[in-house]
Amino acid sequence: MIRSLFFEPGKDIRKNLPPQEFPKLIRNRRGILWVDFVAEPPDICLPVLEGFGFHRLAIDDALQETHVPKLDDWTDYLYIVLNYMEVKKGEDAWHTNVDELDIFLGTNYIVTHHDHPIAAVDETWLSCDRDPRTLQEGSDHLLYKIADYMVAEYMPIVEELDAAIDLIEDQVFIRPSPRTLERLFALKRVLLAMRRILLPQREVLNKLARDDYQVIDPRDRIFFRDIYDHLVRLHDLNESLRDLVGGAQDTYLSVVNNRMNDIMKTLTIITVLFMPLTFITGYFGMNFFEPLGNLKEWTTTFVFFITFATILVLPFIMYLWMRRRTWI
Amino acid sequence: MIRSLFFEPGKDIRKNLPPQEFPKLIRNRRGILWVDFVAEPPDICLPVLEGFGFHRLAIDDALQETHVPKLDDWTDYLYIVLNYMEVKKGEDAWHTNVDELDIFLGTNYIVTHHDHPIAAVDETWLSCDRDPRTLQEGSDHLLYKIADYMVAEYMPIVEELDAAIDLIEDQVFIRPSPRTLERLFALKRVLLAMRRILLPQREVLNKLARDDYQVIDPRDRIFFRDIYDHLVRLHDLNESLRDLVGGAQDTYLSVVNNRMNDIMKTLTIITVLFMPLTFITGYFGMNFFEPLGNLKEWTTTFVFFITFATILVLPFIMYLWMRRRTWI
Amino acid sequence: MIRSLFFEPGKDIRKNLPPQEFPKLIRNRRGILWVDFVAEPPDICLPVLEGFGFHRLAIDDALQETHVPKLDDWTDYLYIVLNYMEVKKGEDAWHTNVDELDIFLGTNYIVTHHDHPIAAVDETWLSCDRDPRTLQEGSDHLLYKIADYMVAEYMPIVEELDAAIDLIEDQVFIRPSPRTLERLFALKRVLLAMRRILLPQREVLNKLARDDYQVIDPRDRIFFRDIYDHLVRLHDLNESLRDLVGGAQDTYLSVVNNRMNDIMKTLTIITVLFMPLTFITGYFGMNFFEPLGNLKEWTTTFVFFITFATILVLPFIMYLWMRRRTWI
Amino acid sequence: MIRSLFFEPGKDIRKNLPPQEFPKLIRNRRGILWVDFVAEPPDICLPVLEGFGFHRLAIDDALQETHVPKLDDWTDYLYIVLNYMEVKKGEDAWHTNVDELDIFLGTNYIVTHHDHPIAAVDETWLSCDRDPRTLQEGSDHLLYKIADYMVAEYMPIVEELDAAIDLIEDQVFIRPSPRTLERLFALKRVLLAMRRILLPQREVLNKLARDDYQVIDPRDRIFFRDIYDHLVRLHDLNESLRDLVGGAQDTYLSVVNNRMNDIMKTLTIITVLFMPLTFITGYFGMNFFEPLGNLKEWTTTFVFFITFATILVLPFIMYLWMRRRTWI
Amino acid sequence: MIRSLFFEPGKDIRKNLPPQEFPKLIRNRRGILWVDFVAEPPDICLPVLEGFGFHRLAIDDALQETHVPKLDDWTDYLYIVLNYMEVKKGEDAWHTNVDELDIFLGTNYIVTHHDHPIAAVDETWLSCDRDPRTLQEGSDHLLYKIADYMVAEYMPIVEELDAAIDLIEDQVFIRPSPRTLERLFALKRVLLAMRRILLPQREVLNKLARDDYQVIDPRDRIFFRDIYDHLVRLHDLNESLRDLVGGAQDTYLSVVNNRMNDIMKTLTIITVLFMPLTFITGYFGMNFFEPLGNLKEWTTTFVFFITFATILVLPFIMYLWMRRRTWI
Repeated sequence: MIRSLFFEPGKDIRKNLPPQEFPKLIRNRRGILWVDFVAEPPDICLPVLEGFGFHRLAIDDALQETHVPKLDDWTDYLYIVLNYMEVKKGEDAWHTNVDELDIFLGTNYIVTHHDHPIAAVDETWLSCDRDPRTLQEGSDHLLYKIADYMVAEYMPIVEELDAAIDLIEDQVFIRPSPRTLERLFALKRVLLAMRRILLPQREVLNKLARDDYQVIDPRDRIFFRDIYDHLVRLHDLNESLRDLVGGAQDTYLSVVNNRMNDIMKTLTIITVLFMPLTFITGYFGMNFFEPLGNLKEWTTTFVFFITFATILVLPFIMYLWMRRRTWI
Repeated sequence: MIRSLFFEPGKDIRKNLPPQEFPKLIRNRRGILWVDFVAEPPDICLPVLEGFGFHRLAIDDALQETHVPKLDDWTDYLYIVLNYMEVKKGEDAWHTNVDELDIFLGTNYIVTHHDHPIAAVDETWLSCDRDPRTLQEGSDHLLYKIADYMVAEYMPIVEELDAAIDLIEDQVFIRPSPRTLERLFALKRVLLAMRRILLPQREVLNKLARDDYQVIDPRDRIFFRDIYDHLVRLHDLNESLRDLVGGAQDTYLSVVNNRMNDIMKTLTIITVLFMPLTFITGYFGMNFFEPLGNLKEWTTTFVFFITFATILVLPFIMYLWMRRRTWI
Repeated sequence: MIRSLFFEPGKDIRKNLPPQEFPKLIRNRRGILWVDFVAEPPDICLPVLEGFGFHRLAIDDALQETHVPKLDDWTDYLYIVLNYMEVKKGEDAWHTNVDELDIFLGTNYIVTHHDHPIAAVDETWLSCDRDPRTLQEGSDHLLYKIADYMVAEYMPIVEELDAAIDLIEDQVFIRPSPRTLERLFALKRVLLAMRRILLPQREVLNKLARDDYQVIDPRDRIFFRDIYDHLVRLHDLNESLRDLVGGAQDTYLSVVNNRMNDIMKTLTIITVLFMPLTFITGYFGMNFFEPLGNLKEWTTTFVFFITFATILVLPFIMYLWMRRRTWI
Repeated sequence: MIRSLFFEPGKDIRKNLPPQEFPKLIRNRRGILWVDFVAEPPDICLPVLEGFGFHRLAIDDALQETHVPKLDDWTDYLYIVLNYMEVKKGEDAWHTNVDELDIFLGTNYIVTHHDHPIAAVDETWLSCDRDPRTLQEGSDHLLYKIADYMVAEYMPIVEELDAAIDLIEDQVFIRPSPRTLERLFALKRVLLAMRRILLPQREVLNKLARDDYQVIDPRDRIFFRDIYDHLVRLHDLNESLRDLVGGAQDTYLSVVNNRMNDIMKTLTIITVLFMPLTFITGYFGMNFFEPLGNLKEWTTTFVFFITFATILVLPFIMYLWMRRRTWI
Repeated sequence: MIRSLFFEPGKDIRKNLPPQEFPKLIRNRRGILWVDFVAEPPDICLPVLEGFGFHRLAIDDALQETHVPKLDDWTDYLYIVLNYMEVKKGEDAWHTNVDELDIFLGTNYIVTHHDHPIAAVDETWLSCDRDPRTLQEGSDHLLYKIADYMVAEYMPIVEELDAAIDLIEDQVFIRPSPRTLERLFALKRVLLAMRRILLPQREVLNKLARDDYQVIDPRDRIFFRDIYDHLVRLHDLNESLRDLVGGAQDTYLSVVNNRMNDIMKTLTIITVLFMPLTFITGYFGMNFFEPLGNLKEWTTTFVFFITFATILVLPFIMYLWMRRRTWI
């Protein structure tokens, strides 16, 4: 789907213009044009993008998914790649999906290209649609709005991850299981994936906030600076969460290790207690010796049934004891 | 609560002025104004802060808790975020609480905003109240005082942590338990949290000590340099403490491992000693053989009671021995 | 084999010229010459390369295999070393082979030297052969084409590695074996080898994209910038894959550890259950006691055969149970 | 104790001058003054230091122990903090003590302040006392002498540590014990403490060797460069020693691990050998069967005493065997 | 031993000149002088070196062994320290020996000082002796030759280490023993020692290749650049080898761990199989029960001898089985 918006101060907003008109419209310095490609096949995007006069290499990068946030300065326009991340929480695992938003930013136009619908773009589109004056603040302000939305979407993910880590930290002490570890690994993977996006994205925003670009009004840099600060904070939170996950992993290992030590200790104690006793009983069980016959009351039917009962009951007691120590 | 102080040389100090007057007062270049927002809801702070003419983004950052020390230069004023840390020692764990102090620093005014009472701010406030000449040295000197107090508060925390580590280091060698490890993890977490605050705070002070800001008298930079040096030292102490905690963890693991080895060794020794003996007694216990009847004195009632006593006493001896080796 | 191409606009392409002519041809500023040495012994390459007037040290580097991507600027020409990697997938292991392509790049000529046939060079050669206008864009564009092909060849390798890691990640959870670990180590080795090539290669392309060289048209730098971006992305993917391999290793270790804990637990449980019982039976098996004779129905032939059957069947049941727990 | 030396070319050296004279003396550009505060309480040092006109913050730093080597340039004078380290070797542990030397260096004076006697300062003091011409080379040369002495004192410590590591490396292979590990941890701690001093000290010397200070004759920089090189080398040696300690720890762990494996192997072998045999003897010990009576010569009194002797002797043989394998 | 060479174009080469002549000879700008000190005591070197007018600190550094490659620029001459490494392969260990070559390089002279004979110096000396024109290319070219020889000597060491690692990698999989690990540690130590020399040496060559020195002809810098590239490659190979050693260590640990798991599994399986059976036999061995007398054919002499044979043979079968699993 190709959708477009054109706004000229004092005139009505125009929508879904034919792509052939774009080259003419961007020559009108007073208007502002936004073209959005959503899940459009490359062969349809290509001629439209070429109509804007973008460099072949930039177009190639936009049409191929490359997944690395970056910023190329082509003087007349900027080519920007931003990433967004979707995290779906399954039962034990987290499904992360990283997609890419390509942006061409000119003085009086912005072209966005993405393979899947993005909430940040749709929200900005709607707000432009509702109030065309949003467009009036310039194309760089539109970029700011989209990036701001996208960065704001990380916060709930971070909070959900935080809650998940809290939950696991309790589990680790109470009833650690291999599944706990699996969950920790899954969390770690999500945090690593997020970090890999945040870091280059932060660099892109840092460039927008500090460097001198023809298409960005120097007075608007503070807005990008603001997003940059948010990304710094997100990165910081990410580090903290990874520290927590690392700590929970260490705790898990030491809890499991302690339990293992307990188990081995019990094995040793039982062996140490009963092996010598068993030897003694074995010794006097050898066929060198004969009973004297005056200890018959030790082997009466009554004693036998007590012994029999003990043999039946003892394993249950042992089982309950081991259960209370959470071995089984 | 919004409280304010206004001092003009030669005049009496004025307190708790109506917020509407602030914009007028800061135009008086000879006076100095301090406004302090304590746990005030954003919708009340907003109009007052806007009255000072601060940028919307800076106000947003101040009203939202963001928890990352930073310094933004808005030419006419600086927007500074500092963090302070409260550490409460529980039985096994340490509860750390990180809060944020937002400061707007102008040439002749300082605005502080925080969600909870801060000792460093209260102390400075009282000293200004007591002796208004403190205000005379300029708004940057007030900032120095507040920051100096805040950094000074880390020292007792560091000392308390140091004492706690000392205590644990002894425990590790004498009677290591899973709880020891838990305590070590708790200490590590506190130290990591402290480090995460100290590092960016250090950067903020470094900027104040080195960079050129319109609102900071270059002659006052050495004061910020001094705080910077304190933060460098605190960071250094933090690193040392983390090294000690790391060392104690390693020691714990090796002590526990050695004890485990001891236990396994005992298990093996007992097994190696008694298994062959038990086989021998089993061999001569087979029903192929019959006693000759001339070894009856080995199975008299007297011998039985000795054997019986041994069987009763042996486990206790074993238990005491294992206890002395601190297994149980 | 030495093969050569010479093209002058407006004239036919000339092929396989005698090496003696090279020095004369490169003085013709309008033409463009490509000489390719394939697996040619040094003593044959040497006089030809000296004919171009290259520095002795550069020629030495080209004729000895040195395997480190680098770029030397000799003003009139660049000496560039690029690496290419061949990965063959065996059953358990991956065979990686790193070879080297030496390039001398002048304003109107390019000399390539390699010990084994390289697909990237052959493809470019064929496309020049087919359409001599390819040559017209200059020698630096030829370099771009070759480097572009070479970098493109890493992508299928990365994808194959990705698939292999996916496969192993499943194995790790279902049936981890020492072989799984071997495969993980093999993958890690391939990824490390790839990283060691990618990093300096990236630096070479970065230099080509940023620095000022006499033989490279500044307008062509964006093409090298494009390859540089691809290498950045490949490096990024490599990092991700190494993270995945590292995660799979951790998972392997924890899965194996958990299984080990399970085994030890079983050993302890069985010992704890049966050792006291065996002691009790031993106790009443001592020759102090005599049977009363009124429990004869417990040792009838019928009971014996039941017991005998139990003794035969029990190990099989145990065996099946251990098998189901995937121990054996 | 406050001691002082004043030397003017052509005149006699003056000692222990009254502190009131210091401000006057340093105005005499031809003379040179050295004031040394040894373990003097702050309230006595303060007025004297203020007499020199030092900045309040610098004096505060000097009177409080801060333990971080640094260099502050106050134009007219330098404030330098150096650390020295005392290492006392106990039986198993090493006691390290880090103290601080504060130096104020002016063009024609040097003020040193320390809480404990320092050999480096005393030695330099004595050599000045003996031959006042030492003073003639300027205050920066005095600083060089003190720093040179201090750095030279690390060398014997490094050599002692080297010897201790050598000793432990042998122990690790022959008879590793928990104590070996404790010693390794102790060594590691000393090396870490030393490194923490060496690094910032190196930076101070680097500054002295490279930067432009009013009070340091540029021709004397090469002397500080020389100390800098020594510190570089010490840092290098420190790294090597830490590598050796790390290697010894790894070796310890693998030696202990190998021994543990040996022990577990023995346990398993004994169990595997005797468990089935014991079952067999148990099987034929069941009360289903009756002896035939024709194997009586297997249970004669003679055989019993042989068996009895075996039961008594076997544990001793086992004990000796386990002892030879260094388990016990 | 002090040996010297002096060559003036058009005249015969002069050898072993008296040290008193050196100061005069170096004033002859057309000639070139090489003085080589081999294992000469400091008190003999000192006056000769002072005759050249070298700075006291540089001479001190040369006469004391300091072992850190560095380059000091004293304008008229360079003081360079290079290291060389001798590696002797013993049975299990590698003996590395690091020595130092001190070089004073002037415009028309070179002074070399070393405590042990160095092949690189001797080779260059011989080639100068054979063909004095070698000297004609200038003192910096002599330095190049010596450094080139020295760097070339690392290559066979690297190859030998490579072969040793290959050998061990096979051992690790087939028959890992504590000795394998010892060998790996030894290899690691050699590689670390080599790395510690290569890194600063690389820096020295980098300075020679890039910086501007009065005594080095800028046109000769490319030669030092060439050595620098070799050192870069050696460092790269060193990294690769260390990766391989690290991989082999990981493999060792996992192979040993797997075998340990196997052993524990067997222990558990045997215990799980036989413990319940032994209990059953024990149960029916209690003296509550009497045999009925109709199962006498189970305890005939014939059965006894079969049982006896089984008891004798079973341990051997077990032993062979354990042997095949490479436990013993």
